[in-house]
Amino acid sequence: VRPWTSLILPEILELLERDSPTEVRTAVEDLLAPDLAEIAEHLPDPAAAKLLTSLDVKIAADALAELPEHRQSEVIEALGRERLGKIVEEMSPDDRADLVKRLPDDTRQAVLPLLAQAERNDVKKLIAFPEGTAGSLMTTDYASLAGDLRVDQALAKLREVAPDSETIYYAYVTDGERRLRGVASLRDIVIALPRKTLQEIMREHPVAVHADDDQEAVAEAFRKYDLTTLPVLDREERLVGIITVDDVLDVIEEEHTEDVQQFGAVVPLEEPYMDTGFGRMVRKRASWLVVLFVGEMLTTNVLAHQEKAFEAVASLVIFIPLIVSSGGNSGSQTATLITRALAMGEIAPTDALKIISREVLIGLSLGAILGLVGLIRAGLGGYAGISHVVGLALVLIVISGTVIGAAIPLALKRLGLDPAVSSAPLIASLVDVIGIFVYFKVAKLMLGI
Amino acid sequence: VRPWTSLILPEILELLERDSPTEVRTAVEDLLAPDLAEIAEHLPDPAAAKLLTSLDVKIAADALAELPEHRQSEVIEALGRERLGKIVEEMSPDDRADLVKRLPDDTRQAVLPLLAQAERNDVKKLIAFPEGTAGSLMTTDYASLAGDLRVDQALAKLREVAPDSETIYYAYVTDGERRLRGVASLRDIVIALPRKTLQEIMREHPVAVHADDDQEAVAEAFRKYDLTTLPVLDREERLVGIITVDDVLDVIEEEHTEDVQQFGAVVPLEEPYMDTGFGRMVRKRASWLVVLFVGEMLTTNVLAHQEKAFEAVASLVIFIPLIVSSGGNSGSQTATLITRALAMGEIAPTDALKIISREVLIGLSLGAILGLVGLIRAGLGGYAGISHVVGLALVLIVISGTVIGAAIPLALKRLGLDPAVSSAPLIASLVDVIGIFVYFKVAKLMLGI
Repeated sequence: VRPWTSLILPEILELLERDSPTEVRTAVEDLLAPDLAEIAEHLPDPAAAKLLTSLDVKIAADALAELPEHRQSEVIEALGRERLGKIVEEMSPDDRADLVKRLPDDTRQAVLPLLAQAERNDVKKLIAFPEGTAGSLMTTDYASLAGDLRVDQALAKLREVAPDSETIYYAYVTDGERRLRGVASLRDIVIALPRKTLQEIMREHPVAVHADDDQEAVAEAFRKYDLTTLPVLDREERLVGIITVDDVLDVIEEEHTEDVQQFGAVVPLEEPYMDTGFGRMVRKRASWLVVLFVGEMLTTNVLAHQEKAFEAVASLVIFIPLIVSSGGNSGSQTATLITRALAMGEIAPTDALKIISREVLIGLSLGAILGLVGLIRAGLGGYAGISHVVGLALVLIVISGTVIGAAIPLALKRLGLDPAVSSAPLIASLVDVIGIFVYFKVAKLMLGI
Repeated sequence: VRPWTSLILPEILELLERDSPTEVRTAVEDLLAPDLAEIAEHLPDPAAAKLLTSLDVKIAADALAELPEHRQSEVIEALGRERLGKIVEEMSPDDRADLVKRLPDDTRQAVLPLLAQAERNDVKKLIAFPEGTAGSLMTTDYASLAGDLRVDQALAKLREVAPDSETIYYAYVTDGERRLRGVASLRDIVIALPRKTLQEIMREHPVAVHADDDQEAVAEAFRKYDLTTLPVLDREERLVGIITVDDVLDVIEEEHTEDVQQFGAVVPLEEPYMDTGFGRMVRKRASWLVVLFVGEMLTTNVLAHQEKAFEAVASLVIFIPLIVSSGGNSGSQTATLITRALAMGEIAPTDALKIISREVLIGLSLGAILGLVGLIRAGLGGYAGISHVVGLALVLIVISGTVIGAAIPLALKRLGLDPAVSSAPLIASLVDVIGIFVYFKVAKLMLGI
């Protein structure tokens, strides 16, 4: 898709510069809002604003909503007041709230008065929910109907609200206090006899979340129950909004990026790689590298006490990086597996004993394999005098790696923390320190130095 | 959700053992299929089979489809032939095909004859698509209508197929050769004047994929275009199925797990942590560890040539792990960022020059920070004689880390390979080797040894 939009980019830019809105409109007629957003993203601000002005206002609203965050505010500055008001008015409530939330204060003060009173209140309500909660993902355009409505009346009602609702495929049945009583899908409604009431055909106890629930719980509910929309309740169990699956797909990607970065020892960037400024990028990476560096400094303390040992047997030095990194690798490998299995709910901290005993045996097997290779390497490479030290140290160090790599994520989870905060390199550093200690301990015992 | 199902588990097990199907049915009346699957997963095979036999056949079919793969075949073996036939007949075509595909050959030969001819052919067609393609995700229960149908006729038709279709919210308009001409949503149909034809109200050029497209392209289409269903075409552009968003959520999770494991140096497990057998687990982890070990052996070769240097200045040895791991950490951190940005389409291999020059400067900044800390550490720790060596080596090694960490994923992508095959530990090992080389080069030059 990407190469294809870049092909028509020059043509559209030319039409925009010639100021011929009708021709622009014809040229992009068949394109969907996400394609238009991709084009606008790669146009200079004034051209992007012109493009949004040439389009039908509904499409323009969708395209603006799909623009990357940092481009939104730039393009908005270039749009005329009147046009901006119309576009923002046309956006769906969740997109509108997201947009307003990200605007710099002065632009926000300029945009809000362009909205009707009802919409302004709606925006204010939605932007109050903190990022990462179910409330911050929800929209307020949904069909909420009374239970005593007949099926044919319900159908007429849905038809009436259809142009403005995010979805008409689910009718949420609420009581006088706006408490959620059940859900009827449009499919159920279409199949049912027209004289039945919603109450009779609705599904009771629908899956729902609370507005202050974490967005991970939202994603989990969609995944488990195969939903396309999910109702959101306030603390008094009143229906306050719905979440649609398209927003959940974005959340899942976002959480994935955050997990990967955190586990790879980067403070999550929040913005795409290229859009993250130099200073910000250095700060986000330096903080973790410094922590790892300080942790790894312990290796110098351990080694400083071994000077006599490696002065006696200099060849011990040659295997330091090999041995140390084997422990680190087995530790970060195990941490990857355990952290992911915890995230997927495949294991729980209550299984810790079982998991750790299993990892001892796995570490023993893996250590035996690496130990054997190491023993052979040292023996054949002219270091036969220490080959047994290398072999045994590897077995012990790989076991430390698997055990620590399993224990730390499990312990963090037990403490109610996100196991991913430990990061693979952090676990590797910890195992490095232990590795050096074990290596020289084994050397001293076996070589009698 | 999990703790809640485990609470009612003993009660249900008792009812099942007392052989009282009606009581079982009442006890689980309010539960949804995914909850029932969660319960069945934790029951012994005969009890799980009994549970599926007590349930309404439609719910039983959905619950069986939601069971983890390895439990499906076990529970099937425990189900009676007749009941099994009814349940499989009731499953949606994609779930049915997935189930049959995973069955051992003899069970498959027993199940297929239980299906009607049409369904048997459908299963055979669907299981022919290789795992990971759009075809393997699609279902064949969808509404395909002729374009000259009037809106009121279309509505009647959708109502008629509603009980059997995966979704009735999209009507796919096809011509005489079953080629896809457009899509009309039930919302469009409900809003339109009854006398209009589908042709007049449908959206032309709908987003679609081909059956042999990769599942990542499917996920990307859903994400970009905010879809809930996606039509699938064969090579002659004929409509052959649709993919629904719930199956895409599962695919995204699966791909995420695979990415994380691969990047953490594990051959993807394919099964949950606890269900992966001991031998299999050791093999999947040993292969990567051995590769990394052999790569890391190069450090011994480099060090073997430096014996004179560290015999002359023994304190050089003390900083080996610290210096080596700093390069490895900066390399794996950069690789994490670049691999993820490539996966998200934020950057492309054509930006390589720009990215690598940026990473040189970032490496310089990060290296300067670590170098300064290292210099102070060495100076204060009684190694003032080599503190300048430690400082300068750190700067150069961190730069190597950021450059290699960026260059390898970019190069792999350029070659058409998955950047994630390089794995963070592999890049770290490579940088380790370079790190030792650089460290001793700097030491020799600065100390004149």
